[in-house]
Amino acid sequence: MKGVILSICSSARLVDLTHDLEPQDVLGGLLALEAAVSFFPEGTVHLAVVDPGVGTARRPLAIRAGGHYFVGPDNGLFTLALGGGGWTAVELTAPEYRRPEISRTFHGRDVFAPAAAYLASGVPLARLGAAVVDPVRWPVPGCRLDGGVLVGEVLDADRFGNLITSIPAARIAEIPGQGAPVVEIGGRRVGGLVGSYAEGGTGEPAVVVGSTARLEIFVRSGSARRLLGAERGAPVRVRRQ
Amino acid sequence: MKGVILSICSSARLVDLTHDLEPQDVLGGLLALEAAVSFFPEGTVHLAVVDPGVGTARRPLAIRAGGHYFVGPDNGLFTLALGGGGWTAVELTAPEYRRPEISRTFHGRDVFAPAAAYLASGVPLARLGAAVVDPVRWPVPGCRLDGGVLVGEVLDADRFGNLITSIPAARIAEIPGQGAPVVEIGGRRVGGLVGSYAEGGTGEPAVVVGSTARLEIFVRSGSARRLLGAERGAPVRVRRQ
Amino acid sequence: MKGVILSICSSARLVDLTHDLEPQDVLGGLLALEAAVSFFPEGTVHLAVVDPGVGTARRPLAIRAGGHYFVGPDNGLFTLALGGGGWTAVELTAPEYRRPEISRTFHGRDVFAPAAAYLASGVPLARLGAAVVDPVRWPVPGCRLDGGVLVGEVLDADRFGNLITSIPAARIAEIPGQGAPVVEIGGRRVGGLVGSYAEGGTGEPAVVVGSTARLEIFVRSGSARRLLGAERGAPVRVRRQ
Repeated sequence: MKGVILSICSSARLVDLTHDLEPQDVLGGLLALEAAVSFFPEGTVHLAVVDPGVGTARRPLAIRAGGHYFVGPDNGLFTLALGGGGWTAVELTAPEYRRPEISRTFHGRDVFAPAAAYLASGVPLARLGAAVVDPVRWPVPGCRLDGGVLVGEVLDADRFGNLITSIPAARIAEIPGQGAPVVEIGGRRVGGLVGSYAEGGTGEPAVVVGSTARLEIFVRSGSARRLLGAERGAPVRVRRQ
Repeated sequence: MKGVILSICSSARLVDLTHDLEPQDVLGGLLALEAAVSFFPEGTVHLAVVDPGVGTARRPLAIRAGGHYFVGPDNGLFTLALGGGGWTAVELTAPEYRRPEISRTFHGRDVFAPAAAYLASGVPLARLGAAVVDPVRWPVPGCRLDGGVLVGEVLDADRFGNLITSIPAARIAEIPGQGAPVVEIGGRRVGGLVGSYAEGGTGEPAVVVGSTARLEIFVRSGSARRLLGAERGAPVRVRRQ
Repeated sequence: MKGVILSICSSARLVDLTHDLEPQDVLGGLLALEAAVSFFPEGTVHLAVVDPGVGTARRPLAIRAGGHYFVGPDNGLFTLALGGGGWTAVELTAPEYRRPEISRTFHGRDVFAPAAAYLASGVPLARLGAAVVDPVRWPVPGCRLDGGVLVGEVLDADRFGNLITSIPAARIAEIPGQGAPVVEIGGRRVGGLVGSYAEGGTGEPAVVVGSTARLEIFVRSGSARRLLGAERGAPVRVRRQ
């Protein structure tokens, strides 16, 4: 893919965001993009390929949203870019902006890399194909207030074994009452909300506001994922003491 | 290695192809190069170090073939670059294009990175050392027709657990008869040839034409490697129904 | 972090040194820097984040030493840069060279990446904050002569399973006597000092002078780490025969 890009746009700056997603993990890709996109300069082309439907009728897309471009399969990977309104999307059908031969197993190389490279070269989005008005959106887990309890779930675990929840820290203010917030995961109460990882007790799970402003369950010098045996989707509840 | 390159050729564009090969896996390196080289621009310098013989008498090489350069140990890693004729190779002996002190455990840093950087800077190949006419070639597994059966083997498994075989899809036409092709691995018959990964049955191995145009055995949303317990070298047979 | 850097200094050349350290492994980070720094061009900014104390009172630092810059937490990661004298260090406190909002869990993005990018853009070190005269130093294991025996330990294992010791090859000359040096690890005598990996016996541990000029225990086509069951800190002794 990088060879294809550099053959089309020799001045492209290539930045690897991650290669560590599990196969077919669209939600993981979506979250990786969410954590990074806004920190890149305007005009950046974000090329992302998590593509279980490669070679089928699923559409190949390019999107412009918030001053950034997104290129990849139409399977929800770019859901968060579509939240703000003002986006434009096209299906990558124009033959002059794809490789001449398209395999049915590697559109990253044959369809998406060329499109990203042409966008980086200044080709207008509209030239790449016909408008798409209904790109697929992924149902990204959030949280809800239920009888005085904020209910969410584990979104993902990072490489330290920290469990990133679907609960934005700002939502805690919605829980009625005055007591300190108490977090439970899988029915087990974990330590209180602390300011930094170093303030957690060794071997004891605690909670911190993570780098995407969501609650995050961690174990100082350890892995909350392993200690709690929790994976994506595990229910998380926040109440007041 | 990257520091050495940038110290010699500050304008070099560095692209990491892979760091995930098993130690000493020359065939894996050769296949990674095969999958990528032709997609890079002419003039690219491909620096590859899988080098169990580092510090011995095995020759350090630079090769020009098909408009590309190759730099690394003389152990067969560049076999596929030597297939087309019209190549030139030299042994990296010129002291002015190596680091002043050469360790016996890290020629990547001391010999190969400088050579790649000088080539990228425009130093002619012939200046790097004396001509080599007999570079080592690796016996890359292929396939053969044997009594109406196309016989090959597993070349490699990718990170999805897909088993890439040594059988080019185009060779199927050589099998006499009219029936649909049937693929067996380790005596077990796998599902038919489908057009894309998404057309495989869940949990059932099937066959697709992979991104290097070889037959590839896969399991939709799973790992053929794990399901079939197959590794490199496992025999693969294609017959007609 | 890369997005932050490129947003501030669009011409920065980004080179990934490693992402494979164990969480919180300050010594591993220090050794990775030691192996690489001197091979990069003068003026390089080395941004390193192994940061168990993120969000606490531990200081964020930038250092200039030996013509290179270092940016990261004040926890000993840059000990080897402080060995030579002539260094200057500052605490990263100037608000105009940090992101406007500083999380307490990701200073890599909010504090260190901006500082590195501004240094790469030519902002003088002294502008980033007040001078620091007592940066934290890590007690890097070395070796000592004890009754005619050179005593050190395993510093680290590389991805091949080679055990890098804390014993510089040059120190062997200090052992009294004339016999060939004999290396023991965990009470077990390993094979003699050979010139290259290929000279080790298959399945038998031997010793080589590694790429940072320290003694290194390896197994040809195998893993000394696995074969010997040795990890960082395992005692290593060298005597004469």
